[in-house]
Amino acid sequence: MSASPDKVMALARRRGILWPSFEVHGKVAGFYDYGPAGTAIKRNVLEVWRRTFVVEGGLLEIDTPSVTPYDVFEASGHVEEFTDLMAKCGSCGSFQKVEGLLDGIHPNPGTLTEADVGPVLADVKCPDCGNIDWSSSEFNLMFSTAIGPEGGRKGFLRPETAQGIFVNFSILYRLARERMPFGVAQVGRGFRNEISPRQGPIRLREFNMAEIEFFVDPDEAAYPPLSEHLEVVFNLVPAGANPVEMTAGDAIKKGLVCSEYLMYFMARTATFLETVGIDRGRLRFRQHEENEMAHYAEDCWDAEIETSYGWIEVVGIADRSAYDLQAHIDHTGKELKAMRRLEEPVEMRVRKVVPVMKQLGRTFRSDAGIVAEALGTVDPDAATGKLVIEVDGRTFEVPPECYEVSDTVETVNVERFVPRVIEPSFGIDRIIYSALEHAYREEDRDGEPFTVLSLSPEVAPWKFGVFPLVSDDGIVAIATSIDAELRTAGVDTIYDAAGSIGRRYARMDEIGTPFCITVDHDSLDDSSVTIRSRDDRTQVRVPVEGLMQFCLNLIKGEGP
Amino acid sequence: MSASPDKVMALARRRGILWPSFEVHGKVAGFYDYGPAGTAIKRNVLEVWRRTFVVEGGLLEIDTPSVTPYDVFEASGHVEEFTDLMAKCGSCGSFQKVEGLLDGIHPNPGTLTEADVGPVLADVKCPDCGNIDWSSSEFNLMFSTAIGPEGGRKGFLRPETAQGIFVNFSILYRLARERMPFGVAQVGRGFRNEISPRQGPIRLREFNMAEIEFFVDPDEAAYPPLSEHLEVVFNLVPAGANPVEMTAGDAIKKGLVCSEYLMYFMARTATFLETVGIDRGRLRFRQHEENEMAHYAEDCWDAEIETSYGWIEVVGIADRSAYDLQAHIDHTGKELKAMRRLEEPVEMRVRKVVPVMKQLGRTFRSDAGIVAEALGTVDPDAATGKLVIEVDGRTFEVPPECYEVSDTVETVNVERFVPRVIEPSFGIDRIIYSALEHAYREEDRDGEPFTVLSLSPEVAPWKFGVFPLVSDDGIVAIATSIDAELRTAGVDTIYDAAGSIGRRYARMDEIGTPFCITVDHDSLDDSSVTIRSRDDRTQVRVPVEGLMQFCLNLIKGEGP
Repeated sequence: MSASPDKVMALARRRGILWPSFEVHGKVAGFYDYGPAGTAIKRNVLEVWRRTFVVEGGLLEIDTPSVTPYDVFEASGHVEEFTDLMAKCGSCGSFQKVEGLLDGIHPNPGTLTEADVGPVLADVKCPDCGNIDWSSSEFNLMFSTAIGPEGGRKGFLRPETAQGIFVNFSILYRLARERMPFGVAQVGRGFRNEISPRQGPIRLREFNMAEIEFFVDPDEAAYPPLSEHLEVVFNLVPAGANPVEMTAGDAIKKGLVCSEYLMYFMARTATFLETVGIDRGRLRFRQHEENEMAHYAEDCWDAEIETSYGWIEVVGIADRSAYDLQAHIDHTGKELKAMRRLEEPVEMRVRKVVPVMKQLGRTFRSDAGIVAEALGTVDPDAATGKLVIEVDGRTFEVPPECYEVSDTVETVNVERFVPRVIEPSFGIDRIIYSALEHAYREEDRDGEPFTVLSLSPEVAPWKFGVFPLVSDDGIVAIATSIDAELRTAGVDTIYDAAGSIGRRYARMDEIGTPFCITVDHDSLDDSSVTIRSRDDRTQVRVPVEGLMQFCLNLIKGEGP
Repeated sequence: MSASPDKVMALARRRGILWPSFEVHGKVAGFYDYGPAGTAIKRNVLEVWRRTFVVEGGLLEIDTPSVTPYDVFEASGHVEEFTDLMAKCGSCGSFQKVEGLLDGIHPNPGTLTEADVGPVLADVKCPDCGNIDWSSSEFNLMFSTAIGPEGGRKGFLRPETAQGIFVNFSILYRLARERMPFGVAQVGRGFRNEISPRQGPIRLREFNMAEIEFFVDPDEAAYPPLSEHLEVVFNLVPAGANPVEMTAGDAIKKGLVCSEYLMYFMARTATFLETVGIDRGRLRFRQHEENEMAHYAEDCWDAEIETSYGWIEVVGIADRSAYDLQAHIDHTGKELKAMRRLEEPVEMRVRKVVPVMKQLGRTFRSDAGIVAEALGTVDPDAATGKLVIEVDGRTFEVPPECYEVSDTVETVNVERFVPRVIEPSFGIDRIIYSALEHAYREEDRDGEPFTVLSLSPEVAPWKFGVFPLVSDDGIVAIATSIDAELRTAGVDTIYDAAGSIGRRYARMDEIGTPFCITVDHDSLDDSSVTIRSRDDRTQVRVPVEGLMQFCLNLIKGEGP
């Protein structure tokens, strides 16, 4: 029998995976709590993610705040562009997301603008009151707040972790030892003030995301690490074309995917999703149509997973071009650029901000040296009038007489450029929900219904159930010592001594524990235990000596 | 030479540990970014925390949203009480926290009320403009926001993770199999809209916290697990008494600490802080004075660490009594209670909400059973008029004719009670900053200054530097293979082939890497490598065979 949101969420609540937040105070749509099992599943999924992308990919990982000042999202374009078209019902006062309202009614409701939408809504009844009395407007999806007293400085909760990386580009480029390409990862909360979220854990107002900003030289098309992943097979849905099954190598050769960087991350994403338990047959990569792309994107492939909600986007892999860094350069005058070595030195006109030391000395005294150095980082094209410079948290106002902008001809062997950005962005909650659905099955055992969650051993909150068959001192001693030894080896276990063995197996099946170890009367004589496997319900007898290695092999999927 | 915030933060920025957020857009006080090294340090500290409290203590860990509806913090008392006294300068318009303004001027500025503060401020100059023209008011420190369109539902960013646990008490009690005592942990962001934060990473507006809510039967004073920690030695500062050094066992015996639960968490906290690198001699536990306690606390001991900012609070271990659960019961009418078995059954008057099935059937048809069951969870003392009940995300309005409140005399063997709560709350950022300060030292080596960060091996972002002495193929092959083998064993390494060995050691010393492995020409002949220790700069020669086990022992502190 197949999974449905109701069934999966009932199990999720029963076993402490996931449930709607704040229920005792009257639930608010779009917020979910992870229970003990869910918190473990999330940690495990993120660990696989870190291993796949951060460790194996050699990325830098950083961690920046959720609360972000207005200026950052004004520069990034989110204040202007991060909106959904909203319809308000004049009859009952409810708010609806136009895209949701027109789903199935209009072929591509996400592309409508405020000007188009009036006539389209004229025939659509309000889902809450049944009347037709719409007014529409653009609604910005960022949660806003104020930093400091009396309105203070306006701020937002970040809708993505990406901007926390872009604004740090210069520090990160230095920490990457000024080598290109390099990537930066961030795992954390994102916030999106959805108009009227109705899809349970699929459309959250506060969600867990994992993002990578991968900075590349726009002149450099090749990405050698792709060569190790050319055999990965995909279901591809190119924009305006038919779905096709193809290897990464062929998709690059035939030009279906036109960037080696995009392809590399698509291949790693497919592997990651499979490792955390997504059924490969229900995974596809769909290219965005021109008119559905985010304001910053030049090309974008979504990883989509088939669930009972339909095909849902769980990862977006976008080519953001130089959009973001250029936007922050334009708004701040800071030079967020990388350098490339020229094959041959060239003579070129160089524009520079040159400190006038005499004036600097008079104005800044002992700080003149610091200010002179900082002037070198100012974008010459933006240098005009009084400059405001921050150095190590101190602010200096540099009057125009303290610097000159000089144009000279110099022989140079490096040039500065704004890197292109490839951004894989992962919706962790959706991936977890999809993994739960793909793992969910109902079984009939001799007329009795059982539910099994076939989570992959890496994702399962607990790897082993450890059971003393009865409360005999000798049996309990062996069971607790096996349990302690596994925990010491870093393997998560559940020790359970309550109820019949059948009921204990059933509990473990429901929470996705792949293996159970039972210590029985025979164990006292033969120093062996029974290991039972969740998925095929087979049982094997294993000696206590060597049990640890046997268990470690089992959860690595290496069999006995 | 000793650490100072300037020196530590300069190193933290240089080596990618920590720096002020959003600098290119003009820094906002109270926000910091963790760089790659800092993100690793934070993860390591949290891993030690989880091992000490969650795994060894057998806690449930959950993960709930930051954005929280108004009702939750109205119930908890934060809307009313979570305030700081603020002074506004009429002359320059700046805002000041009164407690900071009066530091060193008034003996206990934290205890002043709005009514008291006027005369005290009459002699205090504005630190920004030097004038005296104050008006004062209470400022609520929660960041506020709105959930949904057009103001929607009012919400806050949580100032503590605790309420996300309290509102889930019933689910968690069930998941703990209704056993007392039990504890629930949460690690995540907290938010506090400080009036005018000036202490760098010590006073953040968005911070990382780790909290435990430990639910106990108020009739049960003994906590047996304390027996394993009676020998832990503390510097104690009891309220209104002189500091004293004492073991946990003596402090309980002499009544200095009057709860075994508080003492248990104080002992575990001391061990945790020492493990992550806090100097035991600069750690003390100070009891709150009556008038400095938070609105929910009955007793509270702070772990304080001595840094160049003075003694700073890093952990609060509070007895919150039944305050929080009772507050949510009062505001929601839900029965957030645990059960205890009575020694002997007693006859008692029992008040119950009893469904009137005939009416329920008429009103709710196929849902009548669900509603009837849910009525059993309603607090009988709060049941009057129309009841609004939520079940699995669905809302039912139950009219008065559908239920009765009955009073009967029954023989019962359990009674319900509101648990008492012990809350250890950890400020992770302050702990990390303190560990950096305690690890920081400057050395003079043959007239040249060097900086060393003696982080504990568990906390250090990288455990081993791996260096090929020169770029010889054979040497590089050995070095990369050692590096790969360590990483596969889950040990974080830095592979560094750039610059002289002396410079590579210096880089590793600065970022706190405890050991470096150098592969040199001799390695090709004798299959051995040199391991150099950061703290005493000794070098030992170790065969490549058995190197892994040698390295694993080293970072566990077990020596060669």
